[in-house]
Amino acid sequence: MRFLSDNATPLHPRVLAAIAAADHADAPYDGDVWSGRMDAAFSALFETQVRALWVSTGTAANSIALAALCPPYGGVLCHEDAHVEVDEGGAPGFFTHGAKLMPLPGPGAKLSPETMAARLATIRDDVHQVPPRAITITNATEYGLVYTPDEVAALGDLARRHGLGFHMDGARFANAVAHLDCAPADLTWRAGVDALSFGCVKNGGMAGEALVLFGDQANARAAESMRWRKRSGHLLSKGRYMAAQILALVDNGLWIANGRAANAAAQALATAIPGRLLHPVQANELFVRLNGDEAARLRAQGFEFYDWGEGAARLVTNWAQRVEDVAPLAAALSALGDG
Amino acid sequence: MRFLSDNATPLHPRVLAAIAAADHADAPYDGDVWSGRMDAAFSALFETQVRALWVSTGTAANSIALAALCPPYGGVLCHEDAHVEVDEGGAPGFFTHGAKLMPLPGPGAKLSPETMAARLATIRDDVHQVPPRAITITNATEYGLVYTPDEVAALGDLARRHGLGFHMDGARFANAVAHLDCAPADLTWRAGVDALSFGCVKNGGMAGEALVLFGDQANARAAESMRWRKRSGHLLSKGRYMAAQILALVDNGLWIANGRAANAAAQALATAIPGRLLHPVQANELFVRLNGDEAARLRAQGFEFYDWGEGAARLVTNWAQRVEDVAPLAAALSALGDG
Amino acid sequence: MRFLSDNATPLHPRVLAAIAAADHADAPYDGDVWSGRMDAAFSALFETQVRALWVSTGTAANSIALAALCPPYGGVLCHEDAHVEVDEGGAPGFFTHGAKLMPLPGPGAKLSPETMAARLATIRDDVHQVPPRAITITNATEYGLVYTPDEVAALGDLARRHGLGFHMDGARFANAVAHLDCAPADLTWRAGVDALSFGCVKNGGMAGEALVLFGDQANARAAESMRWRKRSGHLLSKGRYMAAQILALVDNGLWIANGRAANAAAQALATAIPGRLLHPVQANELFVRLNGDEAARLRAQGFEFYDWGEGAARLVTNWAQRVEDVAPLAAALSALGDG
Amino acid sequence: MRFLSDNATPLHPRVLAAIAAADHADAPYDGDVWSGRMDAAFSALFETQVRALWVSTGTAANSIALAALCPPYGGVLCHEDAHVEVDEGGAPGFFTHGAKLMPLPGPGAKLSPETMAARLATIRDDVHQVPPRAITITNATEYGLVYTPDEVAALGDLARRHGLGFHMDGARFANAVAHLDCAPADLTWRAGVDALSFGCVKNGGMAGEALVLFGDQANARAAESMRWRKRSGHLLSKGRYMAAQILALVDNGLWIANGRAANAAAQALATAIPGRLLHPVQANELFVRLNGDEAARLRAQGFEFYDWGEGAARLVTNWAQRVEDVAPLAAALSALGDG
Repeated sequence: MRFLSDNATPLHPRVLAAIAAADHADAPYDGDVWSGRMDAAFSALFETQVRALWVSTGTAANSIALAALCPPYGGVLCHEDAHVEVDEGGAPGFFTHGAKLMPLPGPGAKLSPETMAARLATIRDDVHQVPPRAITITNATEYGLVYTPDEVAALGDLARRHGLGFHMDGARFANAVAHLDCAPADLTWRAGVDALSFGCVKNGGMAGEALVLFGDQANARAAESMRWRKRSGHLLSKGRYMAAQILALVDNGLWIANGRAANAAAQALATAIPGRLLHPVQANELFVRLNGDEAARLRAQGFEFYDWGEGAARLVTNWAQRVEDVAPLAAALSALGDG
Repeated sequence: MRFLSDNATPLHPRVLAAIAAADHADAPYDGDVWSGRMDAAFSALFETQVRALWVSTGTAANSIALAALCPPYGGVLCHEDAHVEVDEGGAPGFFTHGAKLMPLPGPGAKLSPETMAARLATIRDDVHQVPPRAITITNATEYGLVYTPDEVAALGDLARRHGLGFHMDGARFANAVAHLDCAPADLTWRAGVDALSFGCVKNGGMAGEALVLFGDQANARAAESMRWRKRSGHLLSKGRYMAAQILALVDNGLWIANGRAANAAAQALATAIPGRLLHPVQANELFVRLNGDEAARLRAQGFEFYDWGEGAARLVTNWAQRVEDVAPLAAALSALGDG
Repeated sequence: MRFLSDNATPLHPRVLAAIAAADHADAPYDGDVWSGRMDAAFSALFETQVRALWVSTGTAANSIALAALCPPYGGVLCHEDAHVEVDEGGAPGFFTHGAKLMPLPGPGAKLSPETMAARLATIRDDVHQVPPRAITITNATEYGLVYTPDEVAALGDLARRHGLGFHMDGARFANAVAHLDCAPADLTWRAGVDALSFGCVKNGGMAGEALVLFGDQANARAAESMRWRKRSGHLLSKGRYMAAQILALVDNGLWIANGRAANAAAQALATAIPGRLLHPVQANELFVRLNGDEAARLRAQGFEFYDWGEGAARLVTNWAQRVEDVAPLAAALSALGDG
Repeated sequence: MRFLSDNATPLHPRVLAAIAAADHADAPYDGDVWSGRMDAAFSALFETQVRALWVSTGTAANSIALAALCPPYGGVLCHEDAHVEVDEGGAPGFFTHGAKLMPLPGPGAKLSPETMAARLATIRDDVHQVPPRAITITNATEYGLVYTPDEVAALGDLARRHGLGFHMDGARFANAVAHLDCAPADLTWRAGVDALSFGCVKNGGMAGEALVLFGDQANARAAESMRWRKRSGHLLSKGRYMAAQILALVDNGLWIANGRAANAAAQALATAIPGRLLHPVQANELFVRLNGDEAARLRAQGFEFYDWGEGAARLVTNWAQRVEDVAPLAAALSALGDG
């Protein structure tokens, strides 16, 4: 059974059905009825008027968001383990035309206002230094931790005071909201977030994330982002198939149900090995102390997962794994003892 | 009935079936078995060892190809009506980091070696002028004309003599090959083409084109293009769904069958109005003299198409339209007389 | 005697003296007293509050201006013979991050509102096409013609109506103003110009042009341009030597005196060969019908100049040539007759 | 007396004389006799065939060098306090089209092979991560320390083994060589350096540094760098004035004499306060423990310098300060005692 990543799972049946249901001619690009429903669907979800654009990947969503928030000569504060910093092949630099990511430390890939403020204080306001113009956080983080609405709001407050745009990479936004059981609005625009990459691919989709823009500047940023989407080759001719997937997740709450399912599976595993957890398990990722021998034993039983440096492993659950599905792994982990 | 464009048609049933067949977990990105078959499938099609990468759109395929062939300070000779020049929202400038498209005239959006040579002769070889480094042609062209293997080879020869990379935008490559009934190899690498954007979306696919790289430098350019694919946010997590679509078209010749079908429908229309054609009909596009009154009459009968400037219209057929399907339009056109 | 170009002449003695006078320690970059006087000096010259930044070259001034006026996904209307289009090695594409120059025809390298309007009318307002965001003209033009204040104002009006920024490449601005004997203000901001590259190097300077920003957005654009100046490596440590040169030209009207001198020398030549002129002589450049034999005869007499295609030559005068200095060439030209 | 920086000192008299001596018409750009002598002059200095291009600033020299060594999707290892990282306003990101600087720690702004190797080991060789392609070091460093030939060679060896280009920022190269009393060749190409920014402005020049390219690829990189120089607006029309300055420093060893003078002045100060030095004094910079009260006392005596964080100051000497000139400061420092 696979616990490698949630990024390669099959499609949720309703997503595949939505693709089939969209399979007739309509206006090209984003002129079709599905694409036309994006703004309304996300506005309903976020309880305010938003703009929502489909794009192919989380990397594209993040990059277009950063290009909308930061000029080429500016900087973006991020965590040193953030996906934008370590796993996007330089895409942020490409889309922003060379803006500088400014990586910061923090446990569990979480950033605090204090860390950000301390970094900001070191930057002189002259043309010799790159001026910070945006911050980006990932929620849930790359280590499966979740920022609360209050924590986001504290960062949003700092962003506002320093005139910085605020982006949230929500590749696992569903898992974050499922953990918090909060309104999506509380975790985003009410906390000062300007742009959200709303993840779908890890949550039952095939290809396509939503770039959601909040606030006064949403329309202006959407207009510009649509230029960037085209300019980066992301404006699909048959956009309806992408919009249909995303809407299948957003309509009727499939997205949050899937997030809850993945989280529940993770909790079932976490409960089996509380003593081995390297980070609290809040979303759908477990980072587990595991020596080579133990890892081999698990793999011999058919469980697939990645090593995470020396003596540790990462286990990722997904929407398709029910608690009963992961019970064998829970049992196997439990059998390892506390090590 | 729709003759607006071939870029918004439904999926060929075998493409949709291929997506469903790929719907189980596999390695992410391009590590899956479908992606792993791309090189071999295209090598068989082109009768030589090639490299083939899936990308989301024709714009992305064209842009990555140009980035592989032209440095940021260089220039790319193209037709002034080329898709790269007029319809890609500046994507070539984005991917090449500011390289200059050098538009040239030519009837039917075709370029001749003479036109290219004349332009090249005007460019001084000093740092004040942008040095041409690549040429790009579209086959079939934006006006539905087809370059023959000999015509391509003449351009390829010129490219070789001037040290220029040679790219072919094959958004309608299937229609070109179907018209010529030639080997794909004759129209590409045997004629000096270095890189081909092999179109699928207009030919029955959902999203995804193949960037095919030929020749000695194919591996080096593929390695670089894979960096660009990631960097531009085009490396899908679940690449298998894209590879599966493309393979469904390439395997068993569905791509050429679809190209033939679209061409045949276009010929059925062309035969009905030989006196009104503004360009020879070789692929699946008709440019037709049509006044406002005539256009209105056709639309009243349920035929949809775009005006093409004053007194003209564009009609595009697609793989899903059989000759009998387009017979009503052929009859309606015929009834208009020679105008 | 050299009539090759005005870009390689010696320094005006007052420029060299100004460099020597600035030769003591002061604050680095643009913190010195000379740099601090730029805004005031140019505000006085233009009879309004302006911002003025020194940069190393006309190419840098033009490029930074275009970057301030046009986003990376936008387009800039220019003449097809404009320096930015043909002689800056792709610098505008570099500084604008890939914005598209949109070249237009026009006699004498001059653009008309009609030509611009016609081009604008062909551009659809959708994301597939590059949206025009700025226009740039050269005054005096690359063929030595001069736009009048009314002609500039007509273009400025068109720019305003279409929401386009308006840049003037004034590498030979002094020659244009000298020809018109108008207020610099009339030729620039009063006619709708947003940004001017004020040329010094062809007019007695060593290195350094002034980028002058007009209007409501001058401060915002200056702040951004200062980022670009640093980012492109154009913020000299010892900026005072550059500011001192520019001020030596602007203070006490040396710039216009030099422009008048160069123009007068050109007129002296033009008068000698009215029948051979390919363009009216308004500034300091002559384009002259001249066959190979005639050219050889002139060169044998020690006159240096460039051929300008087949059967023509370009003669450029400069500030250091008095009418009596060019009398020998005038005589030699006159002796050739009307050809 | 000023100890703020060496970047705002007057010109060495021989530099000013060289500018005056170059003040007659010659071929524009780099076609003049002074520019034509650059390669030979630097080849003699470095005892091997090199290519040498003048550019306006150190930022431009560094950026063009990095663009020549690193593709847009690559990374450049540098020190976290390096000028390229903290003081060039994002220029490296601009010229490299978004390549990533990868900052590393190390005392005195020096990098060790061990630190670099450790960082390299963390980077996976896949398209998700930015591949390192170059390293850059500053010699003398931003803290006035000097890499020895052996230390450079150890980094050069690591660069070669990992296929990385190797750049040295030599804004204070003269001070480094003066300290080591070694052959310039030993500190550069013999130690594996591919490209050197040879500083002149801090060493008696007005504007202009030399980008020196070594090794097999020097010609190819020079050809490309000349494109970049033009494209970034750094190709001055009257390049002779810049070349003449640089040659005035290189010919007859003025550059190293100036470096020695500045170092000697720094040593004279260092000797006065051995107990307060925060870094060894090897070049022309002193970082000194100094509380607010002490700093105020020095300033009251007319000494100008920058604070360097809390309780510290930076003192920079320059070529124009003889030991006897700085004796008053030495005495004043000495009078402060060990604090």
